[in-house]
Amino acid sequence: MSNADIIIGEVLGTALLILLGAGVCAAVTLKKSKAQNAGWLAIAFGWGFAVLTAAYVAAGVSGAHLNPAVTLGLAIQGGTEWADVPLYIASEMVGAMLGAFLAWVTYYGQFKVHMADLANQPGAVEGPDDAKAGPVLGIFSTGPEIRKSVQNLLTEIIGTFALVIAILTQGLNGEGNGLGTLGVLITALVVVSIGLSLGGPTGYAINPARDLGPRIVHALLPLKGKGRSDWGYAWIPVVGPLVGAAVAGGLYNIALA
Amino acid sequence: MSNADIIIGEVLGTALLILLGAGVCAAVTLKKSKAQNAGWLAIAFGWGFAVLTAAYVAAGVSGAHLNPAVTLGLAIQGGTEWADVPLYIASEMVGAMLGAFLAWVTYYGQFKVHMADLANQPGAVEGPDDAKAGPVLGIFSTGPEIRKSVQNLLTEIIGTFALVIAILTQGLNGEGNGLGTLGVLITALVVVSIGLSLGGPTGYAINPARDLGPRIVHALLPLKGKGRSDWGYAWIPVVGPLVGAAVAGGLYNIALA
Amino acid sequence: MSNADIIIGEVLGTALLILLGAGVCAAVTLKKSKAQNAGWLAIAFGWGFAVLTAAYVAAGVSGAHLNPAVTLGLAIQGGTEWADVPLYIASEMVGAMLGAFLAWVTYYGQFKVHMADLANQPGAVEGPDDAKAGPVLGIFSTGPEIRKSVQNLLTEIIGTFALVIAILTQGLNGEGNGLGTLGVLITALVVVSIGLSLGGPTGYAINPARDLGPRIVHALLPLKGKGRSDWGYAWIPVVGPLVGAAVAGGLYNIALA
Amino acid sequence: MSNADIIIGEVLGTALLILLGAGVCAAVTLKKSKAQNAGWLAIAFGWGFAVLTAAYVAAGVSGAHLNPAVTLGLAIQGGTEWADVPLYIASEMVGAMLGAFLAWVTYYGQFKVHMADLANQPGAVEGPDDAKAGPVLGIFSTGPEIRKSVQNLLTEIIGTFALVIAILTQGLNGEGNGLGTLGVLITALVVVSIGLSLGGPTGYAINPARDLGPRIVHALLPLKGKGRSDWGYAWIPVVGPLVGAAVAGGLYNIALA
Repeated sequence: MSNADIIIGEVLGTALLILLGAGVCAAVTLKKSKAQNAGWLAIAFGWGFAVLTAAYVAAGVSGAHLNPAVTLGLAIQGGTEWADVPLYIASEMVGAMLGAFLAWVTYYGQFKVHMADLANQPGAVEGPDDAKAGPVLGIFSTGPEIRKSVQNLLTEIIGTFALVIAILTQGLNGEGNGLGTLGVLITALVVVSIGLSLGGPTGYAINPARDLGPRIVHALLPLKGKGRSDWGYAWIPVVGPLVGAAVAGGLYNIALA
Repeated sequence: MSNADIIIGEVLGTALLILLGAGVCAAVTLKKSKAQNAGWLAIAFGWGFAVLTAAYVAAGVSGAHLNPAVTLGLAIQGGTEWADVPLYIASEMVGAMLGAFLAWVTYYGQFKVHMADLANQPGAVEGPDDAKAGPVLGIFSTGPEIRKSVQNLLTEIIGTFALVIAILTQGLNGEGNGLGTLGVLITALVVVSIGLSLGGPTGYAINPARDLGPRIVHALLPLKGKGRSDWGYAWIPVVGPLVGAAVAGGLYNIALA
Repeated sequence: MSNADIIIGEVLGTALLILLGAGVCAAVTLKKSKAQNAGWLAIAFGWGFAVLTAAYVAAGVSGAHLNPAVTLGLAIQGGTEWADVPLYIASEMVGAMLGAFLAWVTYYGQFKVHMADLANQPGAVEGPDDAKAGPVLGIFSTGPEIRKSVQNLLTEIIGTFALVIAILTQGLNGEGNGLGTLGVLITALVVVSIGLSLGGPTGYAINPARDLGPRIVHALLPLKGKGRSDWGYAWIPVVGPLVGAAVAGGLYNIALA
Repeated sequence: MSNADIIIGEVLGTALLILLGAGVCAAVTLKKSKAQNAGWLAIAFGWGFAVLTAAYVAAGVSGAHLNPAVTLGLAIQGGTEWADVPLYIASEMVGAMLGAFLAWVTYYGQFKVHMADLANQPGAVEGPDDAKAGPVLGIFSTGPEIRKSVQNLLTEIIGTFALVIAILTQGLNGEGNGLGTLGVLITALVVVSIGLSLGGPTGYAINPARDLGPRIVHALLPLKGKGRSDWGYAWIPVVGPLVGAAVAGGLYNIALA
C-alpha cells in the first residue's frame, strides 16, 4: 500500500465515518431536525451504517482502518506494518476532524436554532453527568453517564476488544485476508452490536480518532453557548481503545494465530 | 446495454423505488394506516429497503441507476456512456412519476380519510417550516425544516456525495464492475445511513427524480385540500444532488481512479 | 424436485414462516408478552426475518416458495412446472395451518390471559374497521383499515407484484437460478420493505396461504371470545396476491425474459 | 478440530455472546445507561448481533456452536463427534460465566446506582411474574411472564427447534458444510427472528449455557439487593432447548438428510 493510498483512503473514509456518525447524533439531538428523538436504536444503527459506508469506500484503497485502535491491533497481529502506523493514525485524525466539520455544515441551521433556544432558557441543559461538558458536545465526542475513570476505561477497553478481535479473526473465516464486502457488512453490524450492548455507560468511543478529532473541532467551532469540551475526560476514549486493541492483538497472537 | 434495457430497467426500478419510498411516507403519515407514527427509523429503513428492492430488480437489466445523480456520477467516472445519459434520466423521471401514482393508488382510501379529517379541523396542518407546502406534500417530495437555500443545497450536496462516492468505489472492492447482489445490499444500507445521519435538515432527496417526479404527480392528482406543491423549493433537490454527484465523480477521477 | 422434497420443504418452511409471523403478531398484541406494544417496525422486521428463517431452511429442499402467489409467478415464468403447482399449494396450506397452530401453542398462556381480560371489559375491543373481525383475528390473518373491496384488492395486487417481480428477476443478477443464501436474505428484506411501505392499508397478506391457513385455524381453535373469522374479507388476500403474481409473471415474460 | 481449538473458540465466542447479550439487557434496564428503555427491538437486535459478533470470531476456530443445544443438534446430525460434546458444553458454560462477569464489569457503576435507587424505594420492583426472581435477574437469565412449566417448556422447545433446524439445513444451501460468513449473518438474523416472534412468553433462552451460566454468576456476584436467582425455573431453559434441538436433529435425519 502506497503512502498516497493510506492518506486518501483513511482521510476520506474517516471523514465519511464521522460525518455520518456525528450526523446521526445531530439528527437525533437538535431541534428542527426531522429525526429529533429518534432514539437509541437510531444512534446504534446510524453509527454502524456509518462504518459500513466509510469502510466500503475505503476498503479497496487503504484497507479501511478508520480507527487508530484497529491500526494498532492489525500492527500487533502483523497485518499492517509498524512503519505505516503513524501515517494511518495521522490520516485518521485529519479525516475525523474533516468529518466533524462537515457534520456541522450539514446541520448548520439546526445548530443555530438549537443554541439560540438553549440561550433563552434559564438553566440551560448541560451534557452527561455534570457541568464539565457543553450541551451539544455529545454530538461531537463521547462522555460518561457516571464519571469514574477506572470504570469508564474498563468499559472502553472491553468494547474495543470486542471490535478488534472480530476484525482480527476475519482471516480465519476463509474469506481471505483484506476486508471484502461481506467483511465490511459484518464489521458494521459488530459496531451496531457494541453500540446496543456496551454503549450505555460511556457512549462507546472505541476509536481514539472518532472521539479526539471531533472534540478538537468542537473546541474550535464558533458555536455560541457551546460550553466546555470536557478535556478532563478526553484521555479515556484514547487510552481505553488502544489498550483494548492491544489486548485483542495479544490474545490473537497467543491463542488464535 | 440496449435502449430497451435502459428504459425497462429504469422505469420499472424507479417506479418500485418511489412506490415503496412514497409508500413508507404515506404509511407513517396517514390516518387509518396501520403504520401511522411508526417513526423516523421506519422511514429510514423503508427508503433504504425501497432502494434494495428496486435495485435488485433493475440491476441485471439496466444497472439500476434509478437516480439522475447516480447516472451523472457514473458518466463522469466513465462507467456509463454520456450518450446514454438523457435516456437514463428520462426513464428515471417516468418511473418516479409512475411510482408516485401507484403509491397514491395503494393508499387511496387513507388519503381520502386523511384529507377529509384535515378539512374538518380549523387551522389545518401545513408541511415543514411554513405555509409554502401542502399537508401531504411530504409523502411525495422533500422539504426543509429550516428554509435557507444555501444551507439546504449544502446538505443535499453532502448527502448525495456520500451516496455517489460509495457507488463509484464499488469496482475497487474486488466485486468486479456492475452492481452485484452484495452491492445492492450495501447500497441500500448506505441509503439507510444517509437517511439516519444526514436526513434531518431537508429529508434527503439525494435524487432529482425522486423529488421532482412525485412533486409533479402531487401537482396533478385530484387530492382535495392538498395545498401547494412548493415549487419555490423544487430546484434545490435537483441541483444539490447533481452537484454532489459531480463532486464525487471528480474526486474519484482525481484521487481514486 | 421430487414430490417428497416439495411436501417436506413447503410444509416445514411455511410452518416456520407462519409460526414466526403469527408469532410476532402475538408477541406485539397479547398481554403478558414481553414484546407487547413493540410497534410496527417489530412487525415488519418480524415478518421479514420469518421469511428469512423459513426460506433458508426450505431453499435447498423445495426451493422455498412458501406462498401460492410465488408458485404461480414461477410457473408463469417457467421456473416451476405447472404439474407441480397443486402439490406446492396444498403443502403451503398445510404448513400455514400447522404454523398457526404452533404459534397458538407458543402463546397459549398469553392468549388465555388476554381473552379473559377482554371478557371482563365492557365493550370488548374488536378487530380493524368494524365488528366483522374478532379481537385476536389480526394475529392470524390480515384485515383492512378501510373496508372497500376494490381498494383492498389493488393494495394486495401492488404489494404482491413488488414481491414476485423481485423473486423472478433473481436469475438476472448473475447469481444463477435457484434461491441461494444471498437471495434468501434479499427476499427477506424485500418483505420488510413491503411491510413498511405497503402494509398500512390491509396488513400485507401478499400470500394466500399466509392468510387463509391461519384464518381456518382461527375458526377451529377453542379460543373463548375469539369472535368472527371475517370470512367476508377472506377472498381478497387470496385473489389479490394471485393477480399480483400473474401480473408480475406476465410482465417478466414480456419485458424481462 | 483439536481440543485446544474447541476450548479457545467456544470459551471466547460464548463469552462474547453473553457479554453482548447480557450487555444489551443491562443497557436497556439500568439507570444511568444511555440506552435505558430502548425497547424490545433493541433487545432482539442486540442479542442477534451478539450472536453475529461471537459466531464470526469463533467460526474459524471451533465452528462457533456457542450453545449446548446446537452442539447436541449437530451431534445427532453427525456434523459433530459425540466424543467432543462434553468439551464443547463445558467450554460454553465457562465462556457464558466469563461473559456475564464481563457484562457486570462493563456496567459496574450502573448496577450500583440502580440497586441503590431500588433500595430507597418502598416496594422494590421484582422480576417477571412473581417474587421468585430478583430485580436485575432478567439481565442475567430468562424468566417467564406466566409461570407454568409445561407451557414454558413448550415455548423453549419450539423456539430452539426453529434455531437448530436452520443451522442444520445450512449444508443444503450449497454453501458447503461449516459456518461461512453468510451463514453467520443468517444465523444472527434467525436469532433476531426468534426473539421478535417467540420471545414474548419466556424471553427465549434457546440455549442452556446462555441461561445457566449467567444465573450462576448472578448467584455469586456481590450485588446488594439482587434478590433470588430463581433456581426453581432454572431447569426449563436447560431441558427445553435440549429437547427442541433433539427434535430438530431427529427430524433432519428422518426427513432432510
